[in-house]
Amino acid sequence: MANKKQQRPKLQIIPLGGVDEIGKNMTAFVYGDDMILVDCGSMFPQEEMLGIDLVIPDITFLVKNRDKLRAILITHGHEDHIGAMPYVLRELPVPVYGTQLSLGLIENKLKEHRINNAKLNTIAAGDKISIGCFTIEFIKVCHSIAGAVALAIHTPVGTVVHTGDFKIDYTPIDGVPTDLAKFALLGKQGVLCLLGESTNVERPGSTISERKIGETFETFFRSAKGRIIVATFASNIHRIQQIIDAAKNHRRKICLSGRSMINVANMATSLGEMHIPDGMLIELDDVKRYRDDQLVIITTGSQGEAMSALVRMAMSEHRQLDIHPGDTVIISATPIPGNEKFVSRVINQLYRKGARVIYDALAEVHTSGHARQEELKLIHSLVKPKFFVPIHGEYRHLVQHAELAKSLGMRDKNVFIPECGGVLEFSRNSAQRAGEVVAGQVLVDGLGIGDVGNVVLRDRKHLSEDGLMVAVLALSKETGELISEPEIISRGFVYVKESEDLIAGARAAIESAIASTTRNTPRKEWGNVKNVVRNRLREYLYEKTKRNPMILPIVVEL
Amino acid sequence: MANKKQQRPKLQIIPLGGVDEIGKNMTAFVYGDDMILVDCGSMFPQEEMLGIDLVIPDITFLVKNRDKLRAILITHGHEDHIGAMPYVLRELPVPVYGTQLSLGLIENKLKEHRINNAKLNTIAAGDKISIGCFTIEFIKVCHSIAGAVALAIHTPVGTVVHTGDFKIDYTPIDGVPTDLAKFALLGKQGVLCLLGESTNVERPGSTISERKIGETFETFFRSAKGRIIVATFASNIHRIQQIIDAAKNHRRKICLSGRSMINVANMATSLGEMHIPDGMLIELDDVKRYRDDQLVIITTGSQGEAMSALVRMAMSEHRQLDIHPGDTVIISATPIPGNEKFVSRVINQLYRKGARVIYDALAEVHTSGHARQEELKLIHSLVKPKFFVPIHGEYRHLVQHAELAKSLGMRDKNVFIPECGGVLEFSRNSAQRAGEVVAGQVLVDGLGIGDVGNVVLRDRKHLSEDGLMVAVLALSKETGELISEPEIISRGFVYVKESEDLIAGARAAIESAIASTTRNTPRKEWGNVKNVVRNRLREYLYEKTKRNPMILPIVVEL
Repeated sequence: MANKKQQRPKLQIIPLGGVDEIGKNMTAFVYGDDMILVDCGSMFPQEEMLGIDLVIPDITFLVKNRDKLRAILITHGHEDHIGAMPYVLRELPVPVYGTQLSLGLIENKLKEHRINNAKLNTIAAGDKISIGCFTIEFIKVCHSIAGAVALAIHTPVGTVVHTGDFKIDYTPIDGVPTDLAKFALLGKQGVLCLLGESTNVERPGSTISERKIGETFETFFRSAKGRIIVATFASNIHRIQQIIDAAKNHRRKICLSGRSMINVANMATSLGEMHIPDGMLIELDDVKRYRDDQLVIITTGSQGEAMSALVRMAMSEHRQLDIHPGDTVIISATPIPGNEKFVSRVINQLYRKGARVIYDALAEVHTSGHARQEELKLIHSLVKPKFFVPIHGEYRHLVQHAELAKSLGMRDKNVFIPECGGVLEFSRNSAQRAGEVVAGQVLVDGLGIGDVGNVVLRDRKHLSEDGLMVAVLALSKETGELISEPEIISRGFVYVKESEDLIAGARAAIESAIASTTRNTPRKEWGNVKNVVRNRLREYLYEKTKRNPMILPIVVEL
Repeated sequence: MANKKQQRPKLQIIPLGGVDEIGKNMTAFVYGDDMILVDCGSMFPQEEMLGIDLVIPDITFLVKNRDKLRAILITHGHEDHIGAMPYVLRELPVPVYGTQLSLGLIENKLKEHRINNAKLNTIAAGDKISIGCFTIEFIKVCHSIAGAVALAIHTPVGTVVHTGDFKIDYTPIDGVPTDLAKFALLGKQGVLCLLGESTNVERPGSTISERKIGETFETFFRSAKGRIIVATFASNIHRIQQIIDAAKNHRRKICLSGRSMINVANMATSLGEMHIPDGMLIELDDVKRYRDDQLVIITTGSQGEAMSALVRMAMSEHRQLDIHPGDTVIISATPIPGNEKFVSRVINQLYRKGARVIYDALAEVHTSGHARQEELKLIHSLVKPKFFVPIHGEYRHLVQHAELAKSLGMRDKNVFIPECGGVLEFSRNSAQRAGEVVAGQVLVDGLGIGDVGNVVLRDRKHLSEDGLMVAVLALSKETGELISEPEIISRGFVYVKESEDLIAGARAAIESAIASTTRNTPRKEWGNVKNVVRNRLREYLYEKTKRNPMILPIVVEL
């Protein structure tokens, strides 16, 4: 060992997000002085992150190694793959490579953040590019968004295949299935490591084809007597194309509702990724000129989001559209974990308005974009990697994907369950864990990036549960006595006006605290007054209400 | 019409909860001067009810008619059927009728609330009792708790069948299936109205038998090498019995963890509803005396509740038990809507600890207690009611249950989708809507019942999202100028220490507000100062942070 020749560098693969979580996907590949980044995603805040808008990866490691970072490669345009772009590009304005639809979505996003100088490079599936010591091939995969690719990253120590998010669809809407031949070819040539997405690893069998959803649309379009309103994800171009096709078959006009729906459709049609026959698209304001059975409305709101177009329609808060009996509403999506109740609420509201509502519990109106067990097995069997690293999943998904790989004959020691920030180091023949880099999550709240931490969140949680009570104590500098009655303000706790006894008791508690700390006490010994007031008030309020509001004593000395 | 004989009173059925929602089930039956109440449930607070502990029905109507209320009948002991008992009995101490297990659970609950004078009357399935003008028969039904009954309420205008919550299980654990013969007999004799539960109406087919879950246990118990830990609902006596039986088959000791698990098991064994062979039950403290493969631990925490025993084990916060590799953890439950993320979290954590985890996505470890479509159709077909009222469901469930009834031949005008507080009035041959009574929800927060309303909740929401800023302004009574620098306190907004520029800017905003309102202005014209300060601060903070903390200006005049 000690006598070795000069060591060649090793390939480092470092997940900076998307492992042990579903969201904010980001993986760095480092070899010598070259680094490339795959994906740059964001994540929805978790319930306990009160008031937070967005979670993005901690990019301390990238910033520290900014001289090495050559490019960002994007597998597809979903938020969990591109959502952190504005934040990362502002800090690290490196070239970005993606398919035209991914870049179109990124461009929209950068525009909102007023970033105009991004170096966006369009690639297509089948392309091969060189960046530093890496050669990257883009491989067509099917997913719930058009323009998705997997990556073959050829490195000096071997080829790494990164699946991105994918499913295997033999009858996709664009006619181009996942490029199984390419995966097979790579497997034949030898693959050092497979990074495989794990989202649907718990599900047996295979996902149903996107085309099947078109058949469901056809069925319901045939029987609908009035308007048809379909809610889906704006980014699911192929789903929307199928709605357009069904509308055409039934001689209905289509109308788009929801800002993101209109933006994405404009972009996708101008790129030729979506096709709306001439004269078929009408404006929202023109809806009233048509009979109900001449209309299909394609809208946002499939997740029951509070301000979305569908929810506003259901709540009679939409300027042009209201739900009425005779309407058929199709919710062509499944709730993202955490959104179940919002979706449930909009469904109930649509029923109340007299609509017929079709959703995932009742019909095949949605299919996942993520490979199930049999599809994963196929990819493993084609790629035949030496090493396997499951990615894009919560911990249990990663473990189960590792088990799936082992069930196909892979050896235990060749499978690595990755950690966020954990370095995996590869030579031609070996792989090992090699320390870790700074990684984690950064919370975005308004304009603040990372300025909301645990203390602020803990306070928000406290305030959210029991509200607060502010007590203003005007103390005489000389005697330490209260000059006037303490002013008490409460918010989110009780109605002060309806709680006169409680407030009177709180005043008495304050007065007793003052008597034991400041009254007739030298001013330099008043240090503890706030704590004593806080504790007395807390005990009193808890005894009376079994609640623990945040207590803020404010001392004004006169 | 005008010439009619003296009118006989009509039967009124008034849902006070459990319709248009899943939870807080409660239905009043009124005839002349007699009223009985079926069930008395609570509900979990919804996400936007920040800090609320529990939601119970508004019982204004019952209190107003307290002279009529003869009894409360309990169909079974789940929280959504008994959770409001302490609150209602304190107000209306009427006799309660239920099976021994339901009353056992109610007694536990009343003890916690220090109510000792409740008039609890044990009935058994098959019993018939008279209360006022009503005769009530209790009908055995299967459900996910033992001791569940449906009711046949014989009234002067006809018989009403109330299903309670039920499923049809031909192989239940206690050997006594849902009493289909009784439903058939009632149907033959003539039923005026069926009130049928709707929870699982979206699901086709039939629920699987509880006994099937025992087979799953058997499979995993056979292959488990180390400890077996099973999490389930404490109230699911039959599930727990099956775990005990499987443990016995495999010569394992059992140990109970979690306060409610221990309480319910004690109560159920003393009532003879649960059977633990002598010597099989060991104490938590004795676990260490046994080998891992001699142990089964039955625990709470199947919903991922933060303080539950399973979560504490997974987080290494349990005093006696820690999860380690070799453990098999079976989560024998499905997440209640809203709990998905908590369950998901505990599963991930158990995997991290090296446990094998079995949950609903991977095996048949749970079955619902609520009838699916084919079971509902069977009951409808047996009972053959004149009128039908779907209950226990969100709006969409009620609509779908109504559709199911119609698909079986019931006429549109004989089906009533009920509303909370909406009166349904029945004669021998007719039914109609007849106005409404006060009904709704009452929020329980600590000791406060109904004292937290919309304003308090709105403030909690505001505080939870952006925190607050308190600004204390000491103003000279004479000049209206600030005597000292404004004191600024913020919580849940930003770290004041790391935001010096922001706070300095906030002070400047306050000073400009003072300059335009109080400075050199007669004191009687200061009325607006707080609003001006609040608005200036709000604008300034939003511009700088895109956040909207709650702003509380406090003026002290010196």
